[in-house]
Amino acid sequence: MHFIEALAAAVPPERIVQDADVLAAYARDQAAWAPVGRPLALVRPADAEQVRAVVAACAAHGVPVVPRGAGTGLSGGANAVDGCVLLALDGLDRILEIDPGEQLAVVQPGVVNDRLRAAAAEHGLWYPPDPASSPWSTIGGNTATNAGGVCCVKYGVTRDYVLGLQVVTGTGKLVRLGRRTRKGVAGYDLAALFVGSEGTLGVITEITVRLLRLPGGAPRTVVGAFGSLVAAGRAVAAVAASGIVPAALELVDRYCLRAVDEWRNMGLADLGDVLLLGRVDTGDDGEAAALQGCFDRAGATWSTRSTDAEEAEALFAARRLAYPALERLGPVLTEDVCVPRGLVPDMLGRIEEHAHAHDVHIANIAHAGDGNLHPLIVVPAGDEAARERAQRAFEAILDDAVALGGTVTGEHGVGLLKKRGMRAELGEDVLELHRAVKAALDPAGILNPGKIL
Amino acid sequence: MHFIEALAAAVPPERIVQDADVLAAYARDQAAWAPVGRPLALVRPADAEQVRAVVAACAAHGVPVVPRGAGTGLSGGANAVDGCVLLALDGLDRILEIDPGEQLAVVQPGVVNDRLRAAAAEHGLWYPPDPASSPWSTIGGNTATNAGGVCCVKYGVTRDYVLGLQVVTGTGKLVRLGRRTRKGVAGYDLAALFVGSEGTLGVITEITVRLLRLPGGAPRTVVGAFGSLVAAGRAVAAVAASGIVPAALELVDRYCLRAVDEWRNMGLADLGDVLLLGRVDTGDDGEAAALQGCFDRAGATWSTRSTDAEEAEALFAARRLAYPALERLGPVLTEDVCVPRGLVPDMLGRIEEHAHAHDVHIANIAHAGDGNLHPLIVVPAGDEAARERAQRAFEAILDDAVALGGTVTGEHGVGLLKKRGMRAELGEDVLELHRAVKAALDPAGILNPGKIL
Repeated sequence: MHFIEALAAAVPPERIVQDADVLAAYARDQAAWAPVGRPLALVRPADAEQVRAVVAACAAHGVPVVPRGAGTGLSGGANAVDGCVLLALDGLDRILEIDPGEQLAVVQPGVVNDRLRAAAAEHGLWYPPDPASSPWSTIGGNTATNAGGVCCVKYGVTRDYVLGLQVVTGTGKLVRLGRRTRKGVAGYDLAALFVGSEGTLGVITEITVRLLRLPGGAPRTVVGAFGSLVAAGRAVAAVAASGIVPAALELVDRYCLRAVDEWRNMGLADLGDVLLLGRVDTGDDGEAAALQGCFDRAGATWSTRSTDAEEAEALFAARRLAYPALERLGPVLTEDVCVPRGLVPDMLGRIEEHAHAHDVHIANIAHAGDGNLHPLIVVPAGDEAARERAQRAFEAILDDAVALGGTVTGEHGVGLLKKRGMRAELGEDVLELHRAVKAALDPAGILNPGKIL
Repeated sequence: MHFIEALAAAVPPERIVQDADVLAAYARDQAAWAPVGRPLALVRPADAEQVRAVVAACAAHGVPVVPRGAGTGLSGGANAVDGCVLLALDGLDRILEIDPGEQLAVVQPGVVNDRLRAAAAEHGLWYPPDPASSPWSTIGGNTATNAGGVCCVKYGVTRDYVLGLQVVTGTGKLVRLGRRTRKGVAGYDLAALFVGSEGTLGVITEITVRLLRLPGGAPRTVVGAFGSLVAAGRAVAAVAASGIVPAALELVDRYCLRAVDEWRNMGLADLGDVLLLGRVDTGDDGEAAALQGCFDRAGATWSTRSTDAEEAEALFAARRLAYPALERLGPVLTEDVCVPRGLVPDMLGRIEEHAHAHDVHIANIAHAGDGNLHPLIVVPAGDEAARERAQRAFEAILDDAVALGGTVTGEHGVGLLKKRGMRAELGEDVLELHRAVKAALDPAGILNPGKIL
C-alpha cells in the first residue's frame, strides 16, 4: 500500500489537504529566519484516534510527522520538513472539563491559552502561564515548548502546571502519562519529559493542567525609568537580592519604546531610556513600595506606583506592543537567553557590545526577574549583509549566555534556530543521552525529525 | 580482570567493605516487608569521580549497582539485590554552595534534608520539601524518590525544587542535567526524568535546588476533631472547594492517637476520634478562621486555632509520633495512595471496609489536603496469617486508589512493594515506554535492577 492510501485509510478524505497554498500557510511558524521544507500533506484530525492512525501510518511508511498548534512558535519547531505530514491540531479545541474542586482542567491541544484562562476565570480559577502569544497560541503548543511568559517569575512555567498528558507515541499507540492527583510517583515522570520535547517524542492529544485560585485584590503596578540598560539590570539584581517576588518584572529598552512611539505615538520614550515594569499581586502596598525602593536605590531617574488598572495597562502596553512595533521596521531575529538573575546587568552589557561589534540594532525586552532576556535583532528588509551580521551576533549572544552559566533558550525552545547553541550548552555526553531517549521513544525517527537534535 | 580487581582499581581499598555485618546493616531500607538480596560489597565513594569509576566497572562486568542515601525509604527501593554493589552516598555530604541572590543551593547527595534547611535558614531562605524523615533522609534520596511531605499541599514536592543534577549514567559517564537559571528549555528535561527514578536511570552525585524566602510572621495552627474518618474527609473536601491553600492539612485517626497516647500519655484521643491539623503561614487570621469554619461546617465536634508555637508543636506531635508509636505495636505495612482531594472521604471509607473485610488494623495518617493517604496496616509480630491478610488488604487498597482515579504511590515511590500496583495503574503500553527509556539510559541493565520495573 502506498503511503497516501494508508493516510486515506487513517482519516476521512476531507481531513487531508494537499492544496499548495494551504500547505504553504501551514508550513512554518513565526521564526522568520528558520528554513522550511516542502510538506507532502496537511492532515487535520478530528480526534485523538485519528491522530493515532496518522502517526501509525507515518511510522509504517517512514514518513515524517510535524505536529503544530497555532504556529506561533519562534524557533522553527513547527516548520515543515521535506516530505512530511503536517499534523494540524488546532481543530482539536474542546475544553473537556474544568473541575473546581480538584482545581484542574482537561483540554484538547488546540485550545487557545486565553480561552482556557477565560473559562477557568468563570470558576474563580486561573491558569497562570501567559506567553505573549496567549491570544493565539494553543495549550498543546505551550506544552510542547514548555512556554513561559510574564508571570513565570512568581508562578512558574507550563511544566509546573501540567499534571497529565494523553499522547500518541512514535509507534502509534495512544497512552496516558502523568495523573489527575496532586502528587504521584508511580513510575518515571514521562509527562514531564514530554513537556518541552517539541513534538519529537510524541504527539500530545490531551492535557490535564492544574489551576490556581484567581489572585484577589487590585494588583499594584510599579514602574521605574533608567538611564541605561546596565542601571536597569542593577535594579533587577537588587529586587532578586531583596527577596521580593513580584508577579511580573519586565524590561523594555529605548529601541522598543521608540518603535512603539513611532507606531502608536504614546510618548513612552519621554519617560526614560529603559523601563522596568513591575507588578505586585499580593494586595500588599508595602511590597509595592519596597519594589519601588529597589528601583530608586538602583538609580531610577523616575518611578511611580499605582493601583489604577487603566494606567497599568497603558504602561504594560509598552511591553506588549514592542515586538509587533519592531517587526514593522524589518525582519526580527528573536533571542531567548536566560542567565542567573544577578548577571542580568553583565548580559545586557555584553548584548550592547555585540550590537556595536556586529553593527546591528538590538532591541531588548526581557522577563528580567527570571533573567530571561529577549534581545531582538532587527535588520532592514532585504539587506543581506546586515542579515549575516545579525546571525553572527545571534550566535555570539548564545555563547555569552552559556559562558555566564545560562542557557540558550529560556522559553522559546530549540526548534531549528538554537540547535548549534544547544549543542554547545549541553555537550556531547548529554546529547548522547538525548539521542538515546529519542531513539527509544521514536524508533522509526518520524516525529518532527531534525528539530532539537 | 575479575570484578573485584576492577572495583579495587576504581576506589581506594578503604572505600570497599565486605564485612558481613556491615553489609547486612546497609542492605535494606525501612520497608520492613520488602525482600532483600545478598550484596557483594559496599562501596563508600569519596567523590563523584569515584562513583563514576565504580559504575563504569559494574557496567563492564554486568554487576548490579544499588545506590542509597540514608536508607529511610519505605518501598524497598534501596534494598540489596543478589550480587550487587551497594553504593553508599551518605558520605558525600557537603553543602557546596548557597547563593542567596539566585536563591539556590548546590549540595552533594548525602546532605541530610534538615541540614540543608538549617543552612538555608541562615540566609533567610527555605528548602520546602519536608518528608517525615527530614532529620535523617538525604537530599539525594529525596530526589531519587521525589519525596513529598507535610507542606506539599501548598509548596509542592522535591521535583518542584530541583533545578539541576550531576549524575553518573548507566554507561559510566559523569554529566550535568538541568540548569542553574530560573527557566530553561534547552533539550529534553532529563533532570525531571531522573527525579523520582529511584536510582534506575543513573546515580545522582550533585543536586542544585531552588530555595524560597522563609515565610515571615507567626503561623496559625487550626485543629478540628471529628467523630469519623468520613466526616474528617468531608472537611478536607470542603477546604479544597473553598480555595484556601493551607501550608499543611494533616489527618490523624483514632488508632494513631491511641498509640501515641499509650506511648507518651498525651491525652490526644480525648480530643476526638479523628484530628485534622491545619497550618496557615500567610499571617492572615482571616484565612485561619475560614479554615476553622470549613472544619466546623463539616461537623467538627471540637475545633481551635492558635498562634502559640508550643501548642502547635504539641498538636502536630500527634502526626509526627504516629508512625513510631504504631511500630511499637508490630510490623507496619505503609500505604501511600493518592486520590483526587474530593474523593478522600470515599477512599477513607473503602479503607475502613478493607480493614473489616481482611480483619486487620489499619491506622490512618494522611497529607489529607493533597489526597495523599498513608493507611498503616499493623499486624502482631509473628502472626503469619495476619501478615497474609494484611498483604491482601494492601493490594486491595492500591486497586481502589486506581479505581478512584488516583495513584498507588503519592510520594514513597514504587521500589519493590508497589510493582504490581504500578503495573495495574499504568498499563502495558506505558510500561513499554518505561522499559524503552530504561534500556536507553541503562543499556547494561545494572542500575538498581528489579526496582520499579
